[in-house]
Amino acid sequence: MMSDVTLINIKEEILAENKGRATKLRAGLDDKGIFLVNFMSSPGSGKTSLIVRTIEQLRDQFRIAVIEGDVDSAVDAERVAEEGVPAVQIKTGGSCHLTAAMVEKGLDALSLESLDLLFLENIGNLICPVGSDTGAHLNVALLSVPEGDDKPLKYPKIFKTADAFIVNKTDVLDYFDFDLESFKRRMRRLNPEAPLFEVSCKTGEGVDLWSRWLRGRVRAPAS
Amino acid sequence: MMSDVTLINIKEEILAENKGRATKLRAGLDDKGIFLVNFMSSPGSGKTSLIVRTIEQLRDQFRIAVIEGDVDSAVDAERVAEEGVPAVQIKTGGSCHLTAAMVEKGLDALSLESLDLLFLENIGNLICPVGSDTGAHLNVALLSVPEGDDKPLKYPKIFKTADAFIVNKTDVLDYFDFDLESFKRRMRRLNPEAPLFEVSCKTGEGVDLWSRWLRGRVRAPAS
Repeated sequence: MMSDVTLINIKEEILAENKGRATKLRAGLDDKGIFLVNFMSSPGSGKTSLIVRTIEQLRDQFRIAVIEGDVDSAVDAERVAEEGVPAVQIKTGGSCHLTAAMVEKGLDALSLESLDLLFLENIGNLICPVGSDTGAHLNVALLSVPEGDDKPLKYPKIFKTADAFIVNKTDVLDYFDFDLESFKRRMRRLNPEAPLFEVSCKTGEGVDLWSRWLRGRVRAPAS
Repeated sequence: MMSDVTLINIKEEILAENKGRATKLRAGLDDKGIFLVNFMSSPGSGKTSLIVRTIEQLRDQFRIAVIEGDVDSAVDAERVAEEGVPAVQIKTGGSCHLTAAMVEKGLDALSLESLDLLFLENIGNLICPVGSDTGAHLNVALLSVPEGDDKPLKYPKIFKTADAFIVNKTDVLDYFDFDLESFKRRMRRLNPEAPLFEVSCKTGEGVDLWSRWLRGRVRAPAS
């Protein structure tokens, strides 16, 4: 049993160190007028698609770049780069979430002077990214319809802590037993305040509402 | 940088300890003639549905029980218990995978004398469960159509190491840009041998083929 106790201490130490680093990173971004948004979800919920759709909506108002986290590939960064915005790929090589130190390395690869809005795509995972501060000003959680409306029961921490929610793939609502009202009730029990956006990154439906809300957050002073 | 080095050592120590525990657990199950199958996938890929469908197919030939892993709920165990088989729920309270020690606790809650086949539903996650031996004789990875055909590129380790693959939700292939041939090519590059089953747990299509194959594995001497 001793080794378990040791692990928890190490974990807390590392989380505390990460928190300090993230706070410093956020302050540095504030100084430069850059707003950092962290996107979290399961694999395949549509983080990259949402980022691409949001870039389409906001590229005329903001200078945007993207940092992509992945265990072992650069396919997402390549897809984002096709939009003509700077994209950095971080390969974690096994780690299940991004840390502030990894984001720092991503920032080193970008021209921060010519940037207003930075998107961070976290590793596809509903557990590990929660609680590891990336330095972001806004933490967005995505859930896609095929994953099921019971996810707030099973992964409460991400639903408790996210600043905004996206339900993606609403175009396939008819083909799945996903009850939007049940989902909302379960999610509201954990998080009564955070805004929820229903979108389909495939058809584009709902992306305008989400983008308009995000635009307001970027213009507001950083929290 | 020192803390990173420390973390890696601790992790390796714990993995080694877990491996020893898992090997012992597997030997104990062999003695009792129990075959343990570990199901791994993202949240919402259909692990519970596949387990329920497989129970329907094999309950006449084997005495079956299920250990369900979850971060924080018992909804899956309740669903399995409706099938009339013994179900144990393990709540990890934050941990992103099951360990052999957790499975041991699950076994303590079951009557092992009246058991042939034991299903283990791991935490919904494509990263953490890989590499942490649960004591299972067979490791099955699921991917569902809505998650996308690029997942072998992004999460190679689970595709490299699993003993069998299930592509679930084939009933919605028409509604998603999921190219089954691309997926197979990507998966085969990592794992040329493991059998792949295409199923729809919703319609039941393909479940018979998978169940027949599994029945053969249970009857064969444990590996």
